[in-house]
Amino acid sequence: MNYHPNQLAVGLRNRKTKTIGLLLPDIRNNFFSTLAKHAEDACRRRGWTLILCNTGDHHKRDIEYIHVLFSKKVDGILYCMSADTDAEKFQKIYSLLKSMSMPYIMIDRSYDLPEQIAAKINHRLGGFLAADHLLQLGHRRIACITGPSHLQESHDRLDGYKHALQKYHVDFDETLVCEGNYQVSGGRQGIHLLGDTPYTALFCFNDLMAFGAMQILKTQNRIVPDDISVVGYDDIIFANMLDVPLTTVQQPVGRAGRMAVENLIASIEENRPIDPIPELDPLLVVRDSTRPLS
Amino acid sequence: MNYHPNQLAVGLRNRKTKTIGLLLPDIRNNFFSTLAKHAEDACRRRGWTLILCNTGDHHKRDIEYIHVLFSKKVDGILYCMSADTDAEKFQKIYSLLKSMSMPYIMIDRSYDLPEQIAAKINHRLGGFLAADHLLQLGHRRIACITGPSHLQESHDRLDGYKHALQKYHVDFDETLVCEGNYQVSGGRQGIHLLGDTPYTALFCFNDLMAFGAMQILKTQNRIVPDDISVVGYDDIIFANMLDVPLTTVQQPVGRAGRMAVENLIASIEENRPIDPIPELDPLLVVRDSTRPLS
Repeated sequence: MNYHPNQLAVGLRNRKTKTIGLLLPDIRNNFFSTLAKHAEDACRRRGWTLILCNTGDHHKRDIEYIHVLFSKKVDGILYCMSADTDAEKFQKIYSLLKSMSMPYIMIDRSYDLPEQIAAKINHRLGGFLAADHLLQLGHRRIACITGPSHLQESHDRLDGYKHALQKYHVDFDETLVCEGNYQVSGGRQGIHLLGDTPYTALFCFNDLMAFGAMQILKTQNRIVPDDISVVGYDDIIFANMLDVPLTTVQQPVGRAGRMAVENLIASIEENRPIDPIPELDPLLVVRDSTRPLS
Repeated sequence: MNYHPNQLAVGLRNRKTKTIGLLLPDIRNNFFSTLAKHAEDACRRRGWTLILCNTGDHHKRDIEYIHVLFSKKVDGILYCMSADTDAEKFQKIYSLLKSMSMPYIMIDRSYDLPEQIAAKINHRLGGFLAADHLLQLGHRRIACITGPSHLQESHDRLDGYKHALQKYHVDFDETLVCEGNYQVSGGRQGIHLLGDTPYTALFCFNDLMAFGAMQILKTQNRIVPDDISVVGYDDIIFANMLDVPLTTVQQPVGRAGRMAVENLIASIEENRPIDPIPELDPLLVVRDSTRPLS
């Protein structure tokens, strides 16, 4: 029962508390809560603990919580940055973490900077897989609801989409692309923004936006997949439970979380630089929301 | 062996860190992530920060994380206990928190103990509302998939269900009741456990189990709501996005989280006992998964 004073004493001696902080943009998004769950499991297996901070996708909260985690003496940070973080704002965070000498690993979202380790998913491949699947089914007018345009991951998915179009000699048409926000509302707005533009397929850059889009399509009596094929991105648990189970791009989010935790803990325990993490490949999961163009 | 340095604890408490810890059983359950989101918002409005710990519904992790939060010098704890916490295990936690002089509020799940403040939802009313709705629709054979039997909240929902049966002079039939686990898997298993027992309606004690049950009913070609009416509990965001939008009991989870944060912070800042929180009433939300017995 005298476990925690000892733990404090041990922590003071080694300057280690065996605690990692994880900054998450939106805990209600199943992608991030799954990441947190796997990161927690990986910490537990090593005898470490994980504390989570939900930033509500606000850059200002990223900074506040990094200060909180620093004052709580965590040994390292897993950092998934807020969607409103542009390159300039990120530079501030980068400088802050460096000034704290805080070991950290970027997860999923990041800007590439020297010596920075990130657990990244190959979103260029993810975007390619989604569009390639629709093109194989005969679709040529494939609308896109992207993520926020300043996020690299959204650019990468769009690059992959364009790359697939090239493979099938289809010209890129920017009237088919509109910017979303990774929320259900972004999918709803996206369908309204696309308006009368003709398209037979839709690629949403995450599952939540696909749900929002499908809700509006339903009110417009446009049947998925008979009238519109829809592909999402993430493969959150509810993708499989919908009205029409969603074809989507599965992100290896559990693996990303585990590898980030393991590399971060190893570097802290062995007092050495963090090992790089190879880019992880996503996987296309075909369900019922896509069908051949008739 | 319950000795803890109380004076140290008191000293730490005087140097406030304006941080609250929130212990959650399962971050991937939308009920808890919504709770965390609202608690975080309420903290932010007061200029406080919230750190989250995901216990994976393991009592052992509850204890570990309470020690971690203590060592991280949080000023108070919001505690939603793990599903495997029975009365005896809870007594240990209660003693631990008391020995730390840690201000805390129980959220949702709790055992009633003296001087203990809880943000509780009236689950007896919730269970009544669900069963009363089905009885009004003419159903008399209403199966139940409950939560873990040692949890008070599950007992309360079952009490409410029984109370509604009495109102309609329907005898309680225990062969219609089976125990679930609040996971999707519990709903799936529940349908198998109920087997050939005839029933025309099903009340699942949370939405996740309703989803699991509906998945199995679908494979058995039993149509919801034509063959079976289904009522869930929680009203998580996806309840509205399903194949058949789910009739469910909406818990005032945001309000519970906000009130718990506000009362906890007020008591810490003003150095006085925590104000009690009145029991909050849930609300029946009727969607498409229930219909009159034909």
